[in-house]
Amino acid sequence: MISLPPLLYADSATNPDQRYFSRISVPDPFIAFGAGRRKIGVVGALEFGRVTRNSDFDEVLPLEAWQQRARDRWPGRRIGPAEVILLLAARYRIRGFTIPDDFPAGIAFALVREGLKLVPAGGLLFPGREIKTRPEIAELRNGNRCSASGIAAAEGLLRRSRIRAGWLYHAGRRLTSEDLKFAIETACLRAGGVSLETIAAGGDQGCDPHESGHGPLRANSLIVVDVFPRLTSSGYYGDMTRTFLRGRASDAQRRLVATVRDAQKLALKAVRPGVNGRDIHRQVVAWFDAQGYPTRATPRGSVGFFHGTGHGVGLAIHELPRISGVVDYTLKPGAVVTVEPGLYYPGLGACRIEDVVEVTEGRPRLLSSYSYDWEIR
Amino acid sequence: MISLPPLLYADSATNPDQRYFSRISVPDPFIAFGAGRRKIGVVGALEFGRVTRNSDFDEVLPLEAWQQRARDRWPGRRIGPAEVILLLAARYRIRGFTIPDDFPAGIAFALVREGLKLVPAGGLLFPGREIKTRPEIAELRNGNRCSASGIAAAEGLLRRSRIRAGWLYHAGRRLTSEDLKFAIETACLRAGGVSLETIAAGGDQGCDPHESGHGPLRANSLIVVDVFPRLTSSGYYGDMTRTFLRGRASDAQRRLVATVRDAQKLALKAVRPGVNGRDIHRQVVAWFDAQGYPTRATPRGSVGFFHGTGHGVGLAIHELPRISGVVDYTLKPGAVVTVEPGLYYPGLGACRIEDVVEVTEGRPRLLSSYSYDWEIR
Repeated sequence: MISLPPLLYADSATNPDQRYFSRISVPDPFIAFGAGRRKIGVVGALEFGRVTRNSDFDEVLPLEAWQQRARDRWPGRRIGPAEVILLLAARYRIRGFTIPDDFPAGIAFALVREGLKLVPAGGLLFPGREIKTRPEIAELRNGNRCSASGIAAAEGLLRRSRIRAGWLYHAGRRLTSEDLKFAIETACLRAGGVSLETIAAGGDQGCDPHESGHGPLRANSLIVVDVFPRLTSSGYYGDMTRTFLRGRASDAQRRLVATVRDAQKLALKAVRPGVNGRDIHRQVVAWFDAQGYPTRATPRGSVGFFHGTGHGVGLAIHELPRISGVVDYTLKPGAVVTVEPGLYYPGLGACRIEDVVEVTEGRPRLLSSYSYDWEIR
Repeated sequence: MISLPPLLYADSATNPDQRYFSRISVPDPFIAFGAGRRKIGVVGALEFGRVTRNSDFDEVLPLEAWQQRARDRWPGRRIGPAEVILLLAARYRIRGFTIPDDFPAGIAFALVREGLKLVPAGGLLFPGREIKTRPEIAELRNGNRCSASGIAAAEGLLRRSRIRAGWLYHAGRRLTSEDLKFAIETACLRAGGVSLETIAAGGDQGCDPHESGHGPLRANSLIVVDVFPRLTSSGYYGDMTRTFLRGRASDAQRRLVATVRDAQKLALKAVRPGVNGRDIHRQVVAWFDAQGYPTRATPRGSVGFFHGTGHGVGLAIHELPRISGVVDYTLKPGAVVTVEPGLYYPGLGACRIEDVVEVTEGRPRLLSSYSYDWEIR
C-alpha cells in the first residue's frame, strides 16, 4: 500500500506536527502538505518572506493568490482553507491525504464531501517524531537545563526564606506559591524557555497533581515543584519535578520521599527497548503497595499513585510513548520519556520526582540533571 | 430546526471554546458536551477533584469508569475518546452533536462511521464568545494592563540606554531585541500574564510583521514593540503595539509614524455596530494611498500595509470579528477588537500602533491605555 502524502492545517507555534514538518514557528494556522518528496507550505503575505527564508519547506505558495483562484473557480462561495486545498490537490494531482488525528473536522468534512480521500493517521502522522535525532536530543537537554534553572530559582528562594510560627517568610512577608512560580518562570525566560502551568504546590495542594499552587507556604511541609518549559527558539520541552521541604521533615515525610525516589530508580532500571511501558508502571504500583502506600479512590479524589509513570517529551509536552497502566506501549531506542512516580496523601502531603531519559540499548541516558537533596534545614 | 448539543474534545489551557465552556484550565484534552441545559465534563482521576470543585460543569464524570465500560462493551478493541463518546451519547439519548470546526477529525470520522451525526459549527460554536460580558470586558482590560506593563518595561530600557556610534548600549553592552523581550516578558509575568511570541523588532526586522526581533538595536531607528500576553488566571488576552525610536527621528520617520497614528484614529472613528470591517479596512488603505504610502508585493515580500486592520480578542488572540480586506464581517455591540494599522518599508522602517476597543453604540470604548509618545531623545 502506498501511503498518502500528509496534509496539515494548524499553526506551528503550538502544534507539534506542523512544527516538525515546517521547522518554523508561525502563530496562525496554515496549510502544509507533501507532494512526492517535496514539502509545500501555503502562507499569507504577513509570513511569506520569513517562511521562504527560514523554514524547511521546499516550496512556499502565496495564500492570497490561491484564495483568488478559488474565488474565480467558485464565484459567490465563501472561500476557506478547504477550497484552497481542493485546488492544490488538483494542481499537484493528489487524490488523497493522510491527516493528523487532530486535523480540523470542519475542513475535513468539507474536503470529503468534495471527493477528496482523507485517512487519519491513527497515531503519529510522522512516526519519526517518536525517535529523536541527535540535534533533538541536544534540544531536549537544553529544555531540561531550562527546567533546572527554574527549579534552582525555587530552591534558592526556599533556602533564603525564614521560618516564623510555622510559615515561610521572605523579604518581610509570607512566601507564597505565586512567589516561587514567578521566580521559576523568570529564570526559565532567562534560560530561553517559557514555562506555562508551572507547579509550586505545598501541603495538601500538592496532592492534586494539576493544582498549580496558591497562597502562603508552610514550613515543615512538602512542596512539589514541576517545571516544563518550552524553548522559544526550537519548540522542544523540558520536564522536571523535585519535591522540597523547608524546615524539618517528619519520619513519615522522609519515608514517603525515599519510597518515591526508590520507585524512580526502579523504573529507570526497567526502561529499555522492547519493554512494555505498562509493565514498568505495574512494577512501580507493586512497589508502592508493598511499601504500604496503596492507591485508592475516595469521595474527595484519588490517593496514592494515580497518574502514569511517564510519557514521551519532544515538541509536545505529552507525546508517545507512554509508561502507564492504561496504555500498551513498547519502548524503542531513541525514544525520550519522563520517569515520574509520585505519592499523594492529603494530611501527609505529596512527593513527585521526575527526570527525562533517552531510551538506549543499555541504561537509559539522563537528559535532565538536578540534585535530589530536598530537606532544606 | 433544533440545534444539536455541543461536543468538544480539547484541552482548555489553549483551546478557547473548551475554556469558555468549562471555565477551568485543564492541560490535557478531555471530552465535554451538553445534554439539555446541562454541561457535562469527562476527566481522569488526575483532574477529577479540581474540576469537580472549580469548573462550570453541572456534572463531572470519571473517565476511567467510562473507559472500563467501553472495554466491557467492545472487548479487544483499542479504546479511545470515540468509544467513550459513543457510550455517553447512548446513555444521554443524544443522536447528534454540533462540533467546533477544529474538532479532531480522527475522532469525528470514527463517530460518523458508528452512525453518530456530527455537524461542524461553521463559525463560532458558542456565538456568545463574540459578545463580551462585563466580567469578560474587565478581564480584557486586565489583559491590556498586562500588555502595557510589558511595553513600559521596553520603553524604560530604551530610555535608560545610551547611544554610541549609532548603537544603543545598556549595562555596558549593546542593547538587543532579546533584552527588550526579556524585560517585557518578565514584566508581563509580574502582571499575571504570559507573553509568547513577543515582538521587539528594530529597523528592517520590523518590516516583517511576525519577525520577533534579534540582535543589537540601532539608535535613530524605528522599533516595533507588540505585546499580547494571556492572563494565567482567566485565559483572556491583551494585545497592544507601540513603535519607539531612541535618538532622533528623521522627517520621513516622523511622517510615517504620524500617518499610522492618523490611520488608527480614522479607523477608531469608524468602529461602530452595523459597520462592515472590510469597509473600515478599505478606508485605512485609501488613507495610506492618499498620503503616498502604497501597498505592493515585491520579490522580497510585501511593503506598505499588508495585514488586517484589526481582529477580535478574547480567550483567543485572534478571533471573530475581523476588520480586514478579505473578510466580510459586520461589527456588533459588545464585540472587542484590535485597531492596528501599520506601514512597512525596508530602508525607512516599520510602524504599527495597536489598541483594543469595545464596540458600543457610541464611540468605541478603549480597553488599552498607553502613551503615544514614541521619540525618546
